[in-house]
Amino acid sequence: MRVRTAAVLALRLRRVTIENSGNGMRRLFSIAVAASLVLLAVFAHAQTDPLPSWNDGVAKTRIMDFVKAVTDVASKDYVAPADRIAVFDNDGTLWAEKPLYFQLLFAIDRVRALAPQHPEWKNTQPFKAAIEGDFDALAASGEKGVGELVMATHAGMTTEAFAKIVDDWIKTAQHPRFKRPYTDLVYQPMLELLSYLRVNDFKIYIVSGGGIEFLRVWADRVYGVPPEQVIGSSIVTKFEMRDGKPVLLREAKIDFIDDKAGKPVAINQFIGRRPIFAFGNSDGDYEMLQWTGAGDGLRFMGLVHHTDAEREWAYGRNSAVGRLDKALDAAGKNGWTVVDMKRDWKQVFPFQR
Amino acid sequence: MRVRTAAVLALRLRRVTIENSGNGMRRLFSIAVAASLVLLAVFAHAQTDPLPSWNDGVAKTRIMDFVKAVTDVASKDYVAPADRIAVFDNDGTLWAEKPLYFQLLFAIDRVRALAPQHPEWKNTQPFKAAIEGDFDALAASGEKGVGELVMATHAGMTTEAFAKIVDDWIKTAQHPRFKRPYTDLVYQPMLELLSYLRVNDFKIYIVSGGGIEFLRVWADRVYGVPPEQVIGSSIVTKFEMRDGKPVLLREAKIDFIDDKAGKPVAINQFIGRRPIFAFGNSDGDYEMLQWTGAGDGLRFMGLVHHTDAEREWAYGRNSAVGRLDKALDAAGKNGWTVVDMKRDWKQVFPFQR
Repeated sequence: MRVRTAAVLALRLRRVTIENSGNGMRRLFSIAVAASLVLLAVFAHAQTDPLPSWNDGVAKTRIMDFVKAVTDVASKDYVAPADRIAVFDNDGTLWAEKPLYFQLLFAIDRVRALAPQHPEWKNTQPFKAAIEGDFDALAASGEKGVGELVMATHAGMTTEAFAKIVDDWIKTAQHPRFKRPYTDLVYQPMLELLSYLRVNDFKIYIVSGGGIEFLRVWADRVYGVPPEQVIGSSIVTKFEMRDGKPVLLREAKIDFIDDKAGKPVAINQFIGRRPIFAFGNSDGDYEMLQWTGAGDGLRFMGLVHHTDAEREWAYGRNSAVGRLDKALDAAGKNGWTVVDMKRDWKQVFPFQR
Repeated sequence: MRVRTAAVLALRLRRVTIENSGNGMRRLFSIAVAASLVLLAVFAHAQTDPLPSWNDGVAKTRIMDFVKAVTDVASKDYVAPADRIAVFDNDGTLWAEKPLYFQLLFAIDRVRALAPQHPEWKNTQPFKAAIEGDFDALAASGEKGVGELVMATHAGMTTEAFAKIVDDWIKTAQHPRFKRPYTDLVYQPMLELLSYLRVNDFKIYIVSGGGIEFLRVWADRVYGVPPEQVIGSSIVTKFEMRDGKPVLLREAKIDFIDDKAGKPVAINQFIGRRPIFAFGNSDGDYEMLQWTGAGDGLRFMGLVHHTDAEREWAYGRNSAVGRLDKALDAAGKNGWTVVDMKRDWKQVFPFQR
């Protein structure tokens, strides 16, 4: 609206000056046009909503108030750019996590692709379940089963070979419900939030329970988060010489699980500064939010609550994947911001316009 | 020299225009002054030596040729800023490491400070040796002894408490030979190299065998390298609630040794990109240099060779601390740049002017 007002103003000025055009008037005309262009730019800037996919409400207001407070040098809550560290969980916070974590769907696809070389898998769980797409049997195999699946598909190759496998998959695989690449299932409002924080000189880190080397392949492309700002779970890698060339070999051995109490540990290990802004969506993010909130000065802690079965999914307190229970109670007690997907997001995925 | 030429030129132009000053001449005068100021700036820029403490020679030439090649968009060796990752070892590369690694001298000082609370240390090695300053007995206690010393002084407190202890020590402790704070024993030529790389949009990481939380306390202050760009060895930390506040407790348990083959592993884990520039000084940096060199495109690998017993120390092939043997042979074979401290550095420490 204001942009339009400024444009009308500029046109009027132009008409007035042309009507009175003498020599001095021509100069006045140029000045007026220049002035209106400046005004236009100022209005346009003030007017642009950095979070257009967020409905007006408490969540949006709190985010914007926080960013204004920590970036305003005159504010008592001002934070120097170097200390503007923001951490985001990935699964369920930046992209969807149903029907299963996408990395697990990747593992299942890999088992199927590798099955011809492993005839024994046809009769061995959890591989049988993966090949047959039997998610219930897979769930029944528990953490141990899932671990076996991950190791069989994520280890035994160099870091470079693994990156290539992930890259091929992420470019071709399709989500079972939406029949689109998995990277289409990122949340439009969160992409806007990442941009908004970035232009305000925040350094954004992903702190995910997912695999660090799985995420790094596409996080820069999809979120604009470079590899050195991606933190995740990892398996052991081993330096080795192969045909006179050094390689890093991925071993079938857990190195670090970046979930729950592991998140603040990893944040301290990788970043060495305490974040001032943290966003998650499940009990796996509880300790990360606690750790962020325990620092001095103004802090922002947010949780995405999945409440929209129509546009996305509705789940929380009783969900096996992405359970939000303990952290939801804590949000109430500690004044953390809960984003109600159905209420707070005008749009969920970029393709749902 | 050229700056002086430009200044003389500017003065001459000024004199000429003043002598002929009519109205048009006054304008010419202004233009000439403006032009000479621009010239001055250009010359000054071209003239400033970014590495004034480096003697002219192969090492300096190779560094500058490399930086020019990877930053020139017209060069076939151009590298985008995001991929300009430079890694530096710390002990013996950025600061001195004699008579012992400074962090070990910190541990010894801590043992002495804590000794009154541990009467049993008087008669137990390696604590007895530390208290008595008997470096030979300490060396005889081997890796196991040193490990005990480190654990007794580095673990059993929160990350914040440890940072405070290191900060107090680094501000007050003095190096036995130079009677100055340890942070005075950084290499002036390397500080210049860090700045030179930084203005050329390199992202600089320290990749040290020393403790990550020991380094982070002062690396930003001394080198301009922020905590998130410091990689090092670590002990396990554990998230815990204490009086309703989350803390990270340092446990007496090795997490990761960032030395030798551990360096490329850590680089991959923390950065997720292969560096294009690597500097070390000992066999502990061999694999880091190999890993850096094995990437595509132009690469720079450098080693500091300690050859100056007068201004610093002279050691290498047979030194227990900072042995440079295998990596020195590899440098010859692979065209890595060996910096001969005595020959290549005009100045070693900032205080030796």
